[in-house]
Amino acid sequence: MSIRLVGFDADDTLWRSEDYYRDAQAQFERIVAGYVDLDDAGDRMHAIEKRNLALFGYGAKGMTLSMLEAAVAITEARISAADMHSIIDLGKGLLRHPVELIPGIREAVADIATDFPVVLVTKGDLFHQEAKVRESGLADAFGRIEIVSEKDAATYARLFREFAVEPREFLMVGNSLRSDIVPVLALGGWGVHMPYHVTWAHEREAGGVPDPSRMREVAHACELPHAVRELHASAQSAFTSPNAR
Amino acid sequence: MSIRLVGFDADDTLWRSEDYYRDAQAQFERIVAGYVDLDDAGDRMHAIEKRNLALFGYGAKGMTLSMLEAAVAITEARISAADMHSIIDLGKGLLRHPVELIPGIREAVADIATDFPVVLVTKGDLFHQEAKVRESGLADAFGRIEIVSEKDAATYARLFREFAVEPREFLMVGNSLRSDIVPVLALGGWGVHMPYHVTWAHEREAGGVPDPSRMREVAHACELPHAVRELHASAQSAFTSPNAR
Repeated sequence: MSIRLVGFDADDTLWRSEDYYRDAQAQFERIVAGYVDLDDAGDRMHAIEKRNLALFGYGAKGMTLSMLEAAVAITEARISAADMHSIIDLGKGLLRHPVELIPGIREAVADIATDFPVVLVTKGDLFHQEAKVRESGLADAFGRIEIVSEKDAATYARLFREFAVEPREFLMVGNSLRSDIVPVLALGGWGVHMPYHVTWAHEREAGGVPDPSRMREVAHACELPHAVRELHASAQSAFTSPNAR
Repeated sequence: MSIRLVGFDADDTLWRSEDYYRDAQAQFERIVAGYVDLDDAGDRMHAIEKRNLALFGYGAKGMTLSMLEAAVAITEARISAADMHSIIDLGKGLLRHPVELIPGIREAVADIATDFPVVLVTKGDLFHQEAKVRESGLADAFGRIEIVSEKDAATYARLFREFAVEPREFLMVGNSLRSDIVPVLALGGWGVHMPYHVTWAHEREAGGVPDPSRMREVAHACELPHAVRELHASAQSAFTSPNAR
Protein backbone atom coordinates (compact mmCIF):
# COMPACT_ATOMS: atom_id res chain seq x y z
CA MET A 1 0.00 0.00 0.00
CA SER A 2 1.23 3.50 -0.69
CA ILE A 3 0.12 7.09 -1.16
CA ARG A 4 -2.04 7.37 -4.27
CA LEU A 5 -3.36 10.93 -4.00
CA VAL A 6 -1.97 14.21 -2.62
CA GLY A 7 -4.30 17.03 -1.59
CA PHE A 8 -3.27 20.67 -1.30
CA ASP A 9 -4.92 23.37 0.74
CA ALA A 10 -5.17 26.75 -1.05
CA ASP A 11 -5.22 29.86 1.19
CA ASP A 12 -1.79 30.37 2.82
CA THR A 13 -0.52 27.14 1.25
CA LEU A 14 -0.62 27.97 -2.47
CA TRP A 15 -1.07 31.72 -2.13
CA ARG A 16 -1.02 34.47 0.48
CA SER A 17 -4.34 35.14 2.15
CA GLU A 18 -4.26 35.72 5.90
CA ASP A 19 -2.06 38.83 5.51
CA TYR A 20 -4.85 40.53 3.59
CA TYR A 21 -7.40 39.67 6.28
CA ARG A 22 -5.04 40.97 8.97
CA ASP A 23 -4.58 44.15 7.05
CA ALA A 24 -8.36 44.60 6.64
CA GLN A 25 -8.85 44.01 10.34
CA ALA A 26 -6.18 46.61 11.20
CA GLN A 27 -7.92 49.15 8.96
CA PHE A 28 -11.25 48.27 10.57
CA GLU A 29 -9.73 48.95 14.00
CA ARG A 30 -8.43 52.31 12.80
CA ILE A 31 -11.92 53.27 11.60
CA VAL A 32 -13.68 52.42 14.87
CA ALA A 33 -10.84 54.04 16.85
CA GLY A 34 -12.24 57.32 15.53
CA TYR A 35 -15.31 56.75 17.74
CA VAL A 36 -14.19 54.85 20.82
CA ASP A 37 -10.95 54.39 22.69
CA LEU A 38 -10.80 50.62 23.03
CA ASP A 39 -7.99 48.12 23.38
CA ASP A 40 -10.21 45.19 22.55
CA ALA A 41 -11.98 46.30 19.34
CA GLY A 42 -10.23 43.49 17.48
CA ASP A 43 -11.30 40.90 20.04
CA ARG A 44 -14.91 42.10 19.98
CA MET A 45 -14.90 41.95 16.20
CA HIS A 46 -13.47 38.42 16.36
CA ALA A 47 -16.17 37.33 18.84
CA ILE A 48 -18.93 38.58 16.50
CA GLU A 49 -17.22 36.98 13.51
CA LYS A 50 -16.98 33.66 15.33
CA ARG A 51 -20.64 33.76 16.38
CA ASN A 52 -21.63 34.50 12.77
CA LEU A 53 -19.58 31.63 11.27
CA ALA A 54 -22.47 29.20 11.76
CA LEU A 55 -24.66 31.47 9.63
CA PHE A 56 -22.19 32.99 7.16
CA GLY A 57 -19.56 30.27 6.75
CA TYR A 58 -15.98 31.22 5.88
CA GLY A 59 -14.87 33.89 3.51
CA ALA A 60 -14.49 37.58 2.84
CA LYS A 61 -18.20 38.40 2.44
CA GLY A 62 -19.09 36.93 5.83
CA MET A 63 -16.12 38.66 7.44
CA THR A 64 -17.22 41.98 5.93
CA LEU A 65 -20.76 41.59 7.27
CA SER A 66 -19.29 40.75 10.68
CA MET A 67 -17.05 43.84 10.57
CA LEU A 68 -20.10 45.99 9.73
CA GLU A 69 -22.11 44.47 12.55
CA ALA A 70 -19.19 44.87 14.97
CA ALA A 71 -18.69 48.50 13.91
CA VAL A 72 -22.28 49.34 14.84
CA ALA A 73 -21.99 47.48 18.16
CA ILE A 74 -18.58 48.87 19.14
CA THR A 75 -19.51 52.49 18.34
CA GLU A 76 -22.94 52.10 19.93
CA ALA A 77 -24.49 52.97 16.57
CA ARG A 78 -22.57 56.23 16.22
CA ILE A 79 -20.57 55.17 13.15
CA SER A 80 -21.23 57.23 10.02
CA ALA A 81 -22.60 55.85 6.77
CA ALA A 82 -19.41 56.98 5.05
CA ASP A 83 -17.30 54.89 7.44
CA MET A 84 -19.65 51.93 6.96
CA HIS A 85 -19.04 52.34 3.25
CA SER A 86 -15.29 52.29 3.88
CA ILE A 87 -15.72 48.95 5.64
CA ILE A 88 -17.66 47.57 2.65
CA ASP A 89 -14.71 48.70 0.52
CA LEU A 90 -12.32 46.80 2.81
CA GLY A 91 -14.35 43.69 2.01
CA LYS A 92 -14.26 44.39 -1.70
CA GLY A 93 -10.50 44.81 -1.44
CA LEU A 94 -10.26 41.32 0.07
CA LEU A 95 -12.16 39.90 -2.90
CA ARG A 96 -10.11 41.85 -5.44
CA HIS A 97 -6.51 41.56 -4.29
CA PRO A 98 -4.24 39.86 -6.82
CA VAL A 99 -3.27 36.24 -6.18
CA GLU A 100 0.31 36.10 -4.94
CA LEU A 101 1.76 32.59 -4.95
CA ILE A 102 3.83 31.31 -2.01
CA PRO A 103 7.50 31.26 -3.17
CA GLY A 104 8.47 27.87 -4.61
CA ILE A 105 4.94 26.40 -4.54
CA ARG A 106 4.48 26.24 -8.31
CA GLU A 107 7.63 24.15 -8.66
CA ALA A 108 6.73 21.98 -5.64
CA VAL A 109 3.25 21.19 -7.01
CA ALA A 110 4.69 20.39 -10.45
CA ASP A 111 7.35 18.14 -8.90
CA ILE A 112 4.88 16.22 -6.71
CA ALA A 113 2.44 15.95 -9.64
CA THR A 114 5.02 13.95 -11.63
CA ASP A 115 4.61 11.09 -9.11
CA PHE A 116 1.11 11.52 -7.68
CA PRO A 117 -2.27 12.80 -8.85
CA VAL A 118 -2.88 16.07 -6.98
CA VAL A 119 -6.19 17.63 -5.93
CA LEU A 120 -7.04 20.99 -4.43
CA VAL A 121 -9.19 20.94 -1.28
CA THR A 122 -10.15 24.36 -0.02
CA LYS A 123 -12.87 25.76 2.15
CA GLY A 124 -14.65 29.05 1.99
CA ASP A 125 -16.55 31.08 -0.49
CA LEU A 126 -17.12 29.13 -3.73
CA PHE A 127 -17.15 32.17 -6.00
CA HIS A 128 -14.04 33.77 -4.50
CA GLN A 129 -12.06 30.52 -4.35
CA GLU A 130 -12.88 29.72 -7.99
CA ALA A 131 -11.71 33.18 -9.00
CA LYS A 132 -8.43 32.72 -7.12
CA VAL A 133 -7.85 29.26 -8.63
CA ARG A 134 -8.38 30.72 -12.12
CA GLU A 135 -6.09 33.67 -11.47
CA SER A 136 -3.36 31.56 -9.85
CA GLY A 137 -2.47 29.77 -13.07
CA LEU A 138 -2.35 26.50 -11.08
CA ALA A 139 -5.78 25.14 -12.08
CA ASP A 140 -4.30 22.87 -14.78
CA ALA A 141 -1.99 21.18 -12.28
CA PHE A 142 -4.90 19.84 -10.26
CA GLY A 143 -6.95 16.91 -11.49
CA ARG A 144 -9.81 18.05 -9.37
CA ILE A 145 -10.76 21.09 -7.34
CA GLU A 146 -12.98 20.61 -4.30
CA ILE A 147 -14.38 23.66 -2.57
CA VAL A 148 -16.04 22.61 0.68
CA SER A 149 -17.81 24.48 3.45
CA GLU A 150 -15.85 22.87 6.31
CA LYS A 151 -12.67 20.76 6.44
CA ASP A 152 -13.41 18.26 9.16
CA ALA A 153 -13.17 14.46 9.33
CA ALA A 154 -16.70 14.01 7.90
CA THR A 155 -15.84 16.12 4.85
CA TYR A 156 -12.55 14.29 4.21
CA ALA A 157 -14.32 10.92 4.59
CA ARG A 158 -16.84 11.98 1.93
CA LEU A 159 -14.04 13.18 -0.37
CA PHE A 160 -12.17 9.88 0.02
CA ARG A 161 -15.30 8.05 -1.18
CA GLU A 162 -15.62 10.43 -4.14
CA PHE A 163 -11.92 10.14 -4.95
CA ALA A 164 -12.11 6.34 -4.48
CA VAL A 165 -9.06 6.22 -2.20
CA GLU A 166 -8.52 4.73 1.24
CA PRO A 167 -7.59 7.24 3.97
CA ARG A 168 -4.14 5.64 4.28
CA GLU A 169 -3.59 6.32 0.56
CA PHE A 170 -4.16 10.07 0.97
CA LEU A 171 -1.70 12.78 1.99
CA MET A 172 -2.73 16.37 2.65
CA VAL A 173 -0.44 19.41 2.41
CA GLY A 174 -1.51 22.56 4.21
CA ASN A 175 -0.77 25.35 6.65
CA SER A 176 -3.56 24.61 9.13
CA LEU A 177 -3.23 21.82 11.67
CA ARG A 178 -6.94 22.17 12.43
CA SER A 179 -8.25 21.97 8.86
CA ASP A 180 -5.57 20.20 6.83
CA ILE A 181 -3.65 17.87 9.12
CA VAL A 182 -5.54 16.73 12.25
CA PRO A 183 -8.72 15.43 10.53
CA VAL A 184 -6.73 13.59 7.83
CA LEU A 185 -4.40 11.97 10.38
CA ALA A 186 -7.38 11.05 12.55
CA LEU A 187 -8.85 9.11 9.61
CA GLY A 188 -5.55 7.26 9.05
CA GLY A 189 -4.08 9.47 6.33
CA TRP A 190 -0.83 11.42 6.08
CA GLY A 191 0.01 15.10 6.35
CA VAL A 192 2.69 17.65 5.54
CA HIS A 193 2.29 20.77 7.62
CA MET A 194 3.75 23.95 6.17
CA PRO A 195 3.00 26.75 8.69
CA TYR A 196 2.31 30.21 7.35
CA HIS A 197 3.90 33.16 9.11
CA VAL A 198 0.49 34.23 10.47
CA THR A 199 -2.46 32.00 11.33
CA TRP A 200 -6.09 33.05 11.75
CA ALA A 201 -7.08 32.67 15.43
CA HIS A 202 -9.85 30.26 14.43
CA GLU A 203 -7.36 27.90 12.79
CA ARG A 204 -5.11 27.87 15.85
CA GLU A 205 -7.74 25.96 17.85
CA ALA A 206 -6.49 22.61 16.65
CA GLY A 207 -6.13 20.23 19.58
CA GLY A 208 -3.37 17.63 19.51
CA VAL A 209 -1.99 15.88 16.45
CA PRO A 210 -3.32 12.30 16.65
CA ASP A 211 -0.34 10.44 15.15
CA PRO A 212 2.74 12.64 14.66
CA SER A 213 4.69 9.84 12.97
CA ARG A 214 2.36 10.21 9.97
CA MET A 215 3.18 13.90 9.63
CA ARG A 216 6.15 16.00 8.52
CA GLU A 217 6.59 19.70 9.06
CA VAL A 218 8.38 21.86 6.52
CA ALA A 219 9.32 25.54 6.60
CA HIS A 220 9.49 26.20 2.86
CA ALA A 221 7.62 24.92 -0.19
CA CYS A 222 10.87 23.65 -1.73
CA GLU A 223 10.95 20.98 1.02
CA LEU A 224 7.52 19.63 0.11
CA PRO A 225 8.47 17.07 -2.59
CA HIS A 226 11.03 15.41 -0.31
CA ALA A 227 8.59 15.30 2.65
CA VAL A 228 5.85 13.77 0.49
CA ARG A 229 8.19 11.10 -0.90
CA GLU A 230 9.50 10.32 2.58
CA LEU A 231 5.98 9.70 3.89
CA HIS A 232 5.20 7.70 0.75
CA ALA A 233 8.17 5.45 1.60
CA SER A 234 6.89 5.11 5.18
CA ALA A 235 3.45 4.19 3.85
CA GLN A 236 4.98 1.54 1.59
CA SER A 237 7.09 -0.03 4.32
CA ALA A 238 4.20 0.09 6.84
CA PHE A 239 2.05 -1.98 4.53
CA THR A 240 4.67 -4.38 3.23
CA SER A 241 6.07 -5.35 6.63
CA PRO A 242 5.17 -8.96 7.57
CA ASN A 243 2.94 -7.90 10.45
CA ALA A 244 0.84 -5.70 8.23
CA ARG A 245 0.16 -8.36 5.64
CA MET B 1 -30.12 6.33 -26.62
CA SER B 2 -32.24 7.69 -23.81
CA ILE B 3 -32.18 9.92 -20.75
CA ARG B 4 -29.80 8.50 -18.15
CA LEU B 5 -29.63 11.32 -15.60
CA VAL B 6 -32.08 13.95 -14.35
CA GLY B 7 -30.84 17.17 -12.72
CA PHE B 8 -32.92 19.36 -10.44
CA ASP B 9 -32.41 23.01 -9.67
CA ALA B 10 -32.94 23.94 -5.99
CA ASP B 11 -34.10 27.52 -5.26
CA ASP B 12 -37.70 28.02 -6.45
CA THR B 13 -37.75 24.48 -7.88
CA LEU B 14 -37.41 22.34 -4.73
CA TRP B 15 -38.12 25.09 -2.20
CA ARG B 16 -39.32 28.68 -2.02
CA SER B 17 -36.59 31.29 -2.24
CA GLU B 18 -37.32 34.33 -4.40
CA ASP B 19 -40.27 35.36 -2.17
CA TYR B 20 -37.86 35.87 0.71
CA TYR B 21 -35.55 38.00 -1.43
CA ARG B 22 -38.52 40.06 -2.64
CA ASP B 23 -39.62 40.57 0.92
CA ALA B 24 -36.12 41.65 2.00
CA GLN B 25 -35.97 44.09 -0.88
CA ALA B 26 -39.37 45.56 0.06
CA GLN B 27 -38.17 46.07 3.64
CA PHE B 28 -34.97 47.64 2.33
CA GLU B 29 -37.05 50.09 0.29
CA ARG B 30 -39.10 50.99 3.37
CA ILE B 31 -35.92 51.74 5.31
CA VAL B 32 -34.43 54.06 2.69
CA ALA B 33 -37.84 55.69 2.14
CA GLY B 34 -37.30 57.22 5.59
CA TYR B 35 -34.52 59.34 4.05
CA VAL B 36 -35.43 60.03 0.44
CA ASP B 37 -38.61 60.15 -1.56
CA LEU B 38 -37.69 57.97 -4.53
CA ASP B 39 -39.68 55.83 -6.93
CA ASP B 40 -36.60 54.02 -8.19
CA ALA B 41 -34.83 52.93 -4.98
CA GLY B 42 -35.43 49.30 -5.96
CA ASP B 43 -34.00 49.83 -9.43
CA ARG B 44 -30.94 51.62 -8.05
CA MET B 45 -30.39 48.78 -5.58
CA HIS B 46 -30.75 46.24 -8.43
CA ALA B 47 -28.20 48.15 -10.56
CA ILE B 48 -25.64 48.05 -7.71
CA GLU B 49 -26.39 44.40 -7.04
CA LYS B 50 -25.89 43.54 -10.70
CA ARG B 51 -22.59 45.43 -10.86
CA ASN B 52 -21.39 43.58 -7.74
CA LEU B 53 -22.31 40.11 -9.05
CA ALA B 54 -18.93 39.77 -10.76
CA LEU B 55 -17.24 40.32 -7.39
CA PHE B 56 -19.70 38.76 -4.93
CA GLY B 57 -21.33 35.98 -6.94
CA TYR B 58 -24.89 34.91 -6.14
CA GLY B 59 -26.42 34.56 -2.73
CA ALA B 60 -27.76 36.30 0.33
CA LYS B 61 -24.45 37.62 1.68
CA GLY B 62 -23.61 39.37 -1.58
CA MET B 63 -27.14 40.75 -1.82
CA THR B 64 -26.87 42.10 1.74
CA LEU B 65 -23.57 43.85 1.00
CA SER B 66 -25.16 45.33 -2.13
CA MET B 67 -28.17 46.56 -0.10
CA LEU B 68 -25.82 48.21 2.39
CA GLU B 69 -23.82 49.86 -0.36
CA ALA B 70 -27.02 50.99 -2.09
CA ALA B 71 -28.41 52.38 1.18
CA VAL B 72 -25.36 54.63 1.60
CA ALA B 73 -25.54 55.75 -2.04
CA ILE B 74 -29.30 56.34 -2.15
CA THR B 75 -29.39 58.32 1.12
CA GLU B 76 -26.24 60.24 0.19
CA ALA B 77 -24.57 58.83 3.32
CA ARG B 78 -27.30 60.05 5.66
CA ILE B 79 -28.50 56.58 6.73
CA SER B 80 -28.05 55.84 10.45
CA ALA B 81 -25.93 53.02 11.84
CA ALA B 82 -29.07 51.55 13.42
CA ASP B 83 -30.76 51.33 10.01
CA MET B 84 -27.61 49.83 8.51
CA HIS B 85 -27.83 47.22 11.25
CA SER B 86 -31.45 46.54 10.31
CA ILE B 87 -30.30 45.85 6.75
CA ILE B 88 -27.67 43.39 8.06
CA ASP B 89 -30.51 41.70 9.94
CA LEU B 90 -32.52 41.45 6.70
CA GLY B 91 -29.60 39.51 5.28
CA LYS B 92 -29.41 37.26 8.32
CA GLY B 93 -33.13 36.60 7.96
CA LEU B 94 -32.53 35.43 4.37
CA LEU B 95 -29.92 32.95 5.63
CA ARG B 96 -32.09 31.74 8.49
CA HIS B 97 -35.57 31.33 7.04
CA PRO B 98 -36.90 27.77 7.26
CA VAL B 99 -36.84 25.68 4.10
CA GLU B 100 -40.35 25.42 2.70
CA LEU B 101 -40.70 22.77 -0.01
CA ILE B 102 -42.68 23.47 -3.20
CA PRO B 103 -45.98 21.53 -2.93
CA GLY B 104 -45.71 18.07 -4.49
CA ILE B 105 -41.96 18.23 -5.15
CA ARG B 106 -40.98 15.57 -2.62
CA GLU B 107 -43.30 13.05 -4.30
CA ALA B 108 -42.21 14.14 -7.80
CA VAL B 109 -38.50 13.68 -6.99
CA ALA B 110 -39.19 10.26 -5.42
CA ASP B 111 -41.24 9.17 -8.44
CA ILE B 112 -38.64 10.28 -10.99
CA ALA B 113 -35.86 8.71 -8.87
CA THR B 114 -37.45 5.27 -9.30
CA ASP B 115 -36.57 5.39 -13.02
CA PHE B 116 -33.57 7.74 -13.23
CA PRO B 117 -30.59 8.69 -11.08
CA VAL B 118 -31.21 12.27 -9.93
CA VAL B 119 -28.65 14.98 -9.10
CA LEU B 120 -29.03 18.42 -7.59
CA VAL B 121 -27.39 21.28 -9.49
CA THR B 122 -27.64 24.63 -7.77
CA LYS B 123 -25.76 27.87 -7.88
CA GLY B 124 -25.03 30.36 -5.18
CA ASP B 125 -23.49 30.40 -1.79
CA LEU B 126 -21.95 27.02 -0.91
CA PHE B 127 -22.53 27.30 2.84
CA HIS B 128 -26.14 28.48 2.56
CA GLN B 129 -27.09 25.95 -0.14
CA GLU B 130 -25.59 23.08 1.87
CA ALA B 131 -27.58 24.18 4.92
CA LYS B 132 -30.81 24.28 2.87
CA VAL B 133 -30.15 20.85 1.34
CA ARG B 134 -29.62 19.42 4.83
CA GLU B 135 -32.73 21.07 6.21
CA SER B 136 -34.91 20.11 3.24
CA GLY B 137 -34.82 16.39 4.04
CA LEU B 138 -34.23 15.73 0.32
CA ALA B 139 -30.46 15.16 0.47
CA ASP B 140 -30.81 11.37 0.47
CA ALA B 141 -32.84 11.40 -2.74
CA PHE B 142 -29.95 12.87 -4.71
CA GLY B 143 -26.99 10.75 -5.71
CA ARG B 144 -24.90 13.84 -5.98
CA ILE B 145 -25.16 17.49 -5.05
CA GLU B 146 -23.31 20.02 -7.18
CA ILE B 147 -23.10 23.60 -5.99
CA VAL B 148 -21.64 25.75 -8.75
CA SER B 149 -20.86 29.43 -9.07
CA GLU B 150 -22.63 29.89 -12.42
CA LYS B 151 -25.04 27.74 -14.44
CA ASP B 152 -23.98 28.34 -18.01
CA ALA B 153 -23.12 26.00 -20.88
CA ALA B 154 -19.47 25.73 -19.77
CA THR B 155 -20.49 24.60 -16.28
CA TYR B 156 -22.98 22.03 -17.60
CA ALA B 157 -20.38 20.71 -20.06
CA ARG B 158 -17.95 20.21 -17.16
CA LEU B 159 -20.64 18.49 -15.08
CA PHE B 160 -21.51 16.13 -17.96
CA ARG B 161 -17.85 15.06 -18.05
CA GLU B 162 -17.84 14.51 -14.29
CA PHE B 163 -21.17 12.63 -14.42
CA ALA B 164 -19.93 10.65 -17.45
CA VAL B 165 -23.09 11.33 -19.48
CA GLU B 166 -23.61 12.69 -22.97
CA PRO B 167 -25.59 15.97 -23.15
CA ARG B 168 -28.44 14.16 -24.96
CA GLU B 169 -28.67 11.75 -22.00
CA PHE B 170 -29.28 14.58 -19.50
CA LEU B 171 -32.53 16.30 -18.56
CA MET B 172 -32.68 19.34 -16.29
CA VAL B 173 -35.71 20.40 -14.24
CA GLY B 174 -35.86 24.01 -13.06
CA ASN B 175 -37.70 27.29 -12.81
CA SER B 176 -35.16 29.42 -14.67
CA LEU B 177 -34.99 29.40 -18.47
CA ARG B 178 -31.68 31.25 -18.25
CA SER B 179 -29.91 28.95 -15.79
CA ASP B 180 -31.68 25.58 -16.04
CA ILE B 181 -33.11 25.20 -19.51
CA VAL B 182 -31.40 27.29 -22.22
CA PRO B 183 -27.78 26.17 -21.59
CA VAL B 184 -28.77 22.49 -21.32
CA LEU B 185 -30.83 22.61 -24.51
CA ALA B 186 -28.03 24.48 -26.28
CA LEU B 187 -25.69 21.57 -25.50
CA GLY B 188 -28.19 19.03 -26.86
CA GLY B 189 -29.88 18.02 -23.61
CA TRP B 190 -33.49 18.14 -22.45
CA GLY B 191 -35.40 20.40 -20.09
CA VAL B 192 -38.58 20.64 -18.05
CA HIS B 193 -39.39 24.22 -17.17
CA MET B 194 -41.51 24.75 -14.06
CA PRO B 195 -41.94 28.53 -13.68
CA TYR B 196 -42.13 29.95 -10.19
CA HIS B 197 -44.72 32.62 -9.48
CA VAL B 198 -41.97 35.25 -9.21
CA THR B 199 -38.64 35.35 -11.01
CA TRP B 200 -35.56 37.37 -10.09
CA ALA B 201 -35.01 40.07 -12.73
CA HIS B 202 -31.54 38.66 -13.43
CA GLU B 203 -33.00 35.24 -14.33
CA ARG B 204 -35.52 36.75 -16.71
CA GLU B 205 -32.73 37.78 -19.10
CA ALA B 206 -32.77 34.43 -20.88
CA GLY B 207 -32.83 34.94 -24.63
CA GLY B 208 -34.66 32.44 -26.80
CA VAL B 209 -35.05 28.72 -26.14
CA PRO B 210 -32.76 27.01 -28.70
CA ASP B 211 -34.85 23.89 -29.40
CA PRO B 212 -38.36 24.01 -27.87
CA SER B 213 -39.17 20.46 -28.99
CA ARG B 214 -36.68 19.22 -26.39
CA MET B 215 -38.49 21.06 -23.59
CA ARG B 216 -41.76 20.72 -21.69
CA GLU B 217 -43.35 23.32 -19.47
CA VAL B 218 -45.35 22.32 -16.39
CA ALA B 219 -47.31 24.42 -13.92
CA HIS B 220 -47.16 22.09 -10.93
CA ALA B 221 -44.62 19.64 -9.50
CA CYS B 222 -47.12 16.77 -9.79
CA GLU B 223 -46.79 17.04 -13.60
CA LEU B 224 -43.02 16.55 -13.52
CA PRO B 225 -42.82 12.73 -13.64
CA HIS B 226 -45.05 12.57 -16.73
CA ALA B 227 -43.12 15.32 -18.51
CA VAL B 228 -39.78 13.62 -17.79
CA ARG B 229 -41.05 10.26 -19.08
CA GLU B 230 -42.51 11.89 -22.18
CA LEU B 231 -39.16 13.47 -23.05
CA HIS B 232 -37.44 10.18 -22.26
CA ALA B 233 -39.71 8.51 -24.85
CA SER B 234 -38.85 11.26 -27.35
CA ALA B 235 -35.16 10.72 -26.68
CA GLN B 236 -35.53 6.99 -27.27
CA SER B 237 -37.46 7.36 -30.52
CA ALA B 238 -35.11 10.11 -31.78
CA PHE B 239 -32.17 7.76 -31.49
CA THR B 240 -33.84 4.59 -32.72
CA SER B 241 -35.43 6.07 -35.85
CA PRO B 242 -33.73 4.84 -39.05
CA ASN B 243 -32.42 8.31 -39.95
CA ALA B 244 -30.70 8.71 -36.62
CA ARG B 245 -28.87 5.40 -36.73
